[in-house]
Amino acid sequence: MVPLAPEGSVDWWRRVVDVGVLQDIIDRFACSQSFAAILTTLNGESVTAPSNFSEFCKRVRAIPEGRDRCWKSDARGGKMALDSGDVKIYRCHCGLIDMAVPISLADGRVIGILLMGQVHLSSYDRDDVLEMARFHWDFLPEEEMDEFVDLFLRIPVVDEEEIHRSASLLKLVASHIVNLCERYITEKSFWERGMVRMRKMVDRELLEKSLKAAQLRSLQRQLNPHFIFNTLNVIYRLAMLEGATQTRDLTLKFSEYLRYVLGKQRRSNLVSLSE
Amino acid sequence: MVPLAPEGSVDWWRRVVDVGVLQDIIDRFACSQSFAAILTTLNGESVTAPSNFSEFCKRVRAIPEGRDRCWKSDARGGKMALDSGDVKIYRCHCGLIDMAVPISLADGRVIGILLMGQVHLSSYDRDDVLEMARFHWDFLPEEEMDEFVDLFLRIPVVDEEEIHRSASLLKLVASHIVNLCERYITEKSFWERGMVRMRKMVDRELLEKSLKAAQLRSLQRQLNPHFIFNTLNVIYRLAMLEGATQTRDLTLKFSEYLRYVLGKQRRSNLVSLSE
Repeated sequence: MVPLAPEGSVDWWRRVVDVGVLQDIIDRFACSQSFAAILTTLNGESVTAPSNFSEFCKRVRAIPEGRDRCWKSDARGGKMALDSGDVKIYRCHCGLIDMAVPISLADGRVIGILLMGQVHLSSYDRDDVLEMARFHWDFLPEEEMDEFVDLFLRIPVVDEEEIHRSASLLKLVASHIVNLCERYITEKSFWERGMVRMRKMVDRELLEKSLKAAQLRSLQRQLNPHFIFNTLNVIYRLAMLEGATQTRDLTLKFSEYLRYVLGKQRRSNLVSLSE
Repeated sequence: MVPLAPEGSVDWWRRVVDVGVLQDIIDRFACSQSFAAILTTLNGESVTAPSNFSEFCKRVRAIPEGRDRCWKSDARGGKMALDSGDVKIYRCHCGLIDMAVPISLADGRVIGILLMGQVHLSSYDRDDVLEMARFHWDFLPEEEMDEFVDLFLRIPVVDEEEIHRSASLLKLVASHIVNLCERYITEKSFWERGMVRMRKMVDRELLEKSLKAAQLRSLQRQLNPHFIFNTLNVIYRLAMLEGATQTRDLTLKFSEYLRYVLGKQRRSNLVSLSE
């Protein structure tokens, strides 16, 4: 069995969870509730592809300095969620509302962060945005500022309570799914190890049984009854010819004893073969 | 191991799925999207408790004839979903919009129906509702008609595409969860049966090994070397006393042969014990 990657790595997620289904669920959630979302590891590596990212954010992330600040915002949000173990709402470097949702295993260990949001909680007018842009969007080329302001104004306004509800529902769904998958993988590897152990035990017992059987056969063959009784018979007759009557009688008695013992052995063998 | 109830029965659902978590997910979905929902078996038995049922529907279901008609509407919707294998939208006997969502296993077998809706797709005015009530709500006491019309008018209006999206998202989530659970339960019982079979094999091999070992010990004990060599020694001396030299020499040779055979056996025993 291939060993599992450390919990919560991209590799671990891919091995444990059907990331395609998870992607589908997050995509649909995000689209139906008009927010963006992405599932990442604790190190910020993407587990799913971005769902429903806003045009504004896509454009910001296309600029190196912008992407850098986005990552820093995401990391800050992820850290807050990780520290508190609960959903955290925060404002990104551009002024949008984001949420960091910790996804944890049944034992409480956080194994991923769902970053979602890219929304407004209230509507802006153009002047407010221009004002904010002058202070915070300094990484943007001056000539594109107007275009970015337009994109910013097109971002949907959502109800704070509603997006909180979506976050906790998505947290529940994703955590339940990952927990079911993790339980399956963990127990599967437990069962597989158990089977290997059992298989080894069966093999060992089989081997030891054959060994005992071989020893038994070997002893029985070497104590070839025909040869023994023939020899004792020759001794008996020789003693008779040489007039040694006591020797003859004792040899007969001894032969009868051996015939009894070996005969019993053969009878008990017959019983064991019929089993 | 307790045998599984037939797939899709209430008992099966309770054993396979964490119904509490499923209830929580459906509750939150229903509340956040302003629809009612309940998961039932193919026979219409409830798996989850009603989520976010409208006051109107609760009141209708409190009247025996009303409840009967609700069940018939539900059954009709469920059957349509079962036949087509897909989400079906229909109008209940009171004029509300309902949806039947089939929940299936990975192999396509439908194992439950999610009934959801109790919504309007467009708003009504009071006169339209009164008109409809006169034709279709004949099971209601005349004096309560006004109150029911008010409750009917308070039911939320939802966008058709939106509720369709919610239905297919909930279908995806519920199906994925039940499939993960079913895979776990099925494989668990597979592994458990495998372990029992292995355990039996180990026990049988252990038993057969002990049997062979016992036969070997018994043969070795009965062919007590001391007794045999003492007896042969007595025969040898007796033959000498009686002047039977040929008998004496043959007895000595025979004794040496047996000593060689039994000695080899004992040496090979020593090897096997050290294993």
